[in-house]
Amino acid sequence: MDTATALTQLRAAVDAAGFLVAPDTIEPYLNESRGRLHGQALAVLRPRCTDEVAAILRICHTHGIGVVAQGGNTGRCGGGVPAAGQIVLALERMHAIRAVDALDDTITVEAGCILAEVQAAAAAVDRLFPLSLGAEGSCRIGGNLASNAGGLNVLRYGMARELCLGLEVVLADGRVWHGLRRLRKDNSGYDLRDLFIGSEGTLGIITAAVLRLLPRPRHTATALLAPSSLTAVLALLARARAAGAGGPHSFELLPRIALQAAAEHVHGCRAPFAELPPWSVLIEFGARGVWIEAELEALLAEAFEAGELDDAVIAQSEAQKAALWRLREGIVEAQKALGASLKHDLAVPVSRVPAFIEQACSALAQQLPGVRPYVFGHVGDGNLHFNLSPPPGMDDASFLAAAAPLTRTLHDLAAAFEGSISAEHGIGLLKTAELARLRPPLELELMRRIKDALDPQGILNPGKVLPPR
Amino acid sequence: MDTATALTQLRAAVDAAGFLVAPDTIEPYLNESRGRLHGQALAVLRPRCTDEVAAILRICHTHGIGVVAQGGNTGRCGGGVPAAGQIVLALERMHAIRAVDALDDTITVEAGCILAEVQAAAAAVDRLFPLSLGAEGSCRIGGNLASNAGGLNVLRYGMARELCLGLEVVLADGRVWHGLRRLRKDNSGYDLRDLFIGSEGTLGIITAAVLRLLPRPRHTATALLAPSSLTAVLALLARARAAGAGGPHSFELLPRIALQAAAEHVHGCRAPFAELPPWSVLIEFGARGVWIEAELEALLAEAFEAGELDDAVIAQSEAQKAALWRLREGIVEAQKALGASLKHDLAVPVSRVPAFIEQACSALAQQLPGVRPYVFGHVGDGNLHFNLSPPPGMDDASFLAAAAPLTRTLHDLAAAFEGSISAEHGIGLLKTAELARLRPPLELELMRRIKDALDPQGILNPGKVLPPR
Repeated sequence: MDTATALTQLRAAVDAAGFLVAPDTIEPYLNESRGRLHGQALAVLRPRCTDEVAAILRICHTHGIGVVAQGGNTGRCGGGVPAAGQIVLALERMHAIRAVDALDDTITVEAGCILAEVQAAAAAVDRLFPLSLGAEGSCRIGGNLASNAGGLNVLRYGMARELCLGLEVVLADGRVWHGLRRLRKDNSGYDLRDLFIGSEGTLGIITAAVLRLLPRPRHTATALLAPSSLTAVLALLARARAAGAGGPHSFELLPRIALQAAAEHVHGCRAPFAELPPWSVLIEFGARGVWIEAELEALLAEAFEAGELDDAVIAQSEAQKAALWRLREGIVEAQKALGASLKHDLAVPVSRVPAFIEQACSALAQQLPGVRPYVFGHVGDGNLHFNLSPPPGMDDASFLAAAAPLTRTLHDLAAAFEGSISAEHGIGLLKTAELARLRPPLELELMRRIKDALDPQGILNPGKVLPPR
Repeated sequence: MDTATALTQLRAAVDAAGFLVAPDTIEPYLNESRGRLHGQALAVLRPRCTDEVAAILRICHTHGIGVVAQGGNTGRCGGGVPAAGQIVLALERMHAIRAVDALDDTITVEAGCILAEVQAAAAAVDRLFPLSLGAEGSCRIGGNLASNAGGLNVLRYGMARELCLGLEVVLADGRVWHGLRRLRKDNSGYDLRDLFIGSEGTLGIITAAVLRLLPRPRHTATALLAPSSLTAVLALLARARAAGAGGPHSFELLPRIALQAAAEHVHGCRAPFAELPPWSVLIEFGARGVWIEAELEALLAEAFEAGELDDAVIAQSEAQKAALWRLREGIVEAQKALGASLKHDLAVPVSRVPAFIEQACSALAQQLPGVRPYVFGHVGDGNLHFNLSPPPGMDDASFLAAAAPLTRTLHDLAAAFEGSISAEHGIGLLKTAELARLRPPLELELMRRIKDALDPQGILNPGKVLPPR
């Protein structure tokens, strides 16, 4: 590999602003968003169009240089962190919205579009693009698709995968797969689209996508619930799924410790309950008609009658809705006040959520007495952000030193519950070893064969998803 | 390849009822459902369990024998038709429903379950399994998944793909991928599931699946509409998608010629319009609440106001709903009275449906004056069953002799409209050449690489989807 020649060719493949090598300019591209991982790179390439991406890939393919695609660099598992000898391919300058079609209910966007911009473009034609997550102001749609992002509206609208109709992908050798279809049905050949979605840049570089748009709800109905138990949470969920215009879009679990922390440490975050229940649920429906408010009321009345609810507060105004959502957002911030956080992104079958939480908390308490589970998130999808805060009084360094066995316990238990160690954040760099440990060897072999079929030289995001050979 | 040894081993791998070789017993497995294609086979294997499927595949892998999986053998493109030297692997005896879980909203079924049985098992726990199509009384879920079946409810609930959470698959070499997950979210590694779905038995044999269940609507609201034009059909669709509990589940186009034919040739099939409009639309909503009826009325009132509707009849009873659905079913039967039928299963972007129909009809009329387009189906998805009946007076043989150029015209035009030559029926044997002609070589190459990665010997459904080398 002749690095100098490759860099000369790469520099010539883009404009001046598209080629960065100075250490201070490339620094922001080398680090993971939470600052835990620090990478290295030969250069950062910032192409303006698909042709430039293709040219970059041709050069890297020729010289065997690893290519790490990056969108908003908001990933949680290090999927966008480069290693020595690799280049970063930053898609941020490719942020055109190529087309919006309200009759087809589609929007065609380039990979570098910020998620919030896609949402806004949909709203401008009275449509909804439902993908919504904490980082939506800075994450980019190419990264959302590469990692099959989830978020707050999956229960009703699905993951990024379900919201994508077509892709444009630059392959490892620089050729371009033109799969930007906007068809609702197409059974002609293998499903290449879904192979690239969620592959975290290891099979191809997504440069553009056709996304589904949906009707924009005119009315939302929002409530904070105090279920009578964790089991009652599931009964409430089943009841709610049958209501409204396709069930609630959000059904979020909030534990007492988080609401306490938010009340103490985040301004304006106080739950509207006299006494905090062990678990709360934030539920929200959307619909075209104002009837959705009455339907939520009827639903809660039935749930009280059935003994599933101890308390519930329906938001009576937009301000009250916003206050309930601030709680959901505030608990992430609030956890920092409790010390270092060990984060896990687990999924189990919905029916097994109560048993899983109970067994996990019990096992963790035996392993590290006093450890504080801070379990919240998308319980409607069986997806728990199973964070851990240190026992009161333990310093962060000691806690983090004890981290690996705690994580292993949670991952083992998730596997025993037929669950997943990554519900929505992907594998990236941080979870490759755990994936290899917990998935059947045959499954890893199938993934490896597909990787080899599409990227025989292994230049696309090397060492991510699948461990290095 | 030592065929005699292989057959001896295959016979030993199953019970007596699991191995058929006598010509009269294997005959039903050799022919396509409409009797157009006639295959040959060494034997028909009828395994009772996944282990037997695995044993069969190991033997066939060792001896290089082609394996053609078959469910209900209701496919439309010859995907289940075997060729000389191959075996048929009929999954019909594997029809257990392994589990139903109303909390998880999942059902775990073996590949040989008849679709209607899956629907019934869902209804028994007050849930809906929404996949619904003409052959539901005899097609089997393994085939539905292998061909990514569509049908009448795709608009709201998606194709078979969207209704599947996990798969159990026997691979070409007889190893079993245990991917029977029932998770709503799982971002750990490549999407193997969606690769097998829709691959028509060419990448692996689906032996079981975890399917999604949905809330069962308590009330339906059904109407037959006379839109003021084809363009108005799209305006109606956009309006309808925003209404109800997630939009209509069915939005079916019915042309005048079909309603005429049904009225004349099928008992009890008379449209409730004084004069038949050029196009009609059968629309149906489902919801938990009876409010859906009022919402349909309001929707139609708005559409009248906007000039999109010339007439509309809302079904006032279950009997009237059934009568409207008989129309939709009757038009398929009725076409036979017009002579031979040239069938096409096209999709175009929804917005382009009117222009596509207009241009296609015009091109066909030039090519074969008097040809009668009989265009119906899932217009809400952009999916048109673009059938052709012969010009009045032309005999079937002459019409069928003129078929190839007409099909080519339609496929070329579908491609020019960024459409698909197979919206929901798959490629099978009948459309491999057209797929190869119309898709970019790079896309075919990617499919071929995946095929080689998962079935290097090429024993799984040889010659289907991808043309033989």
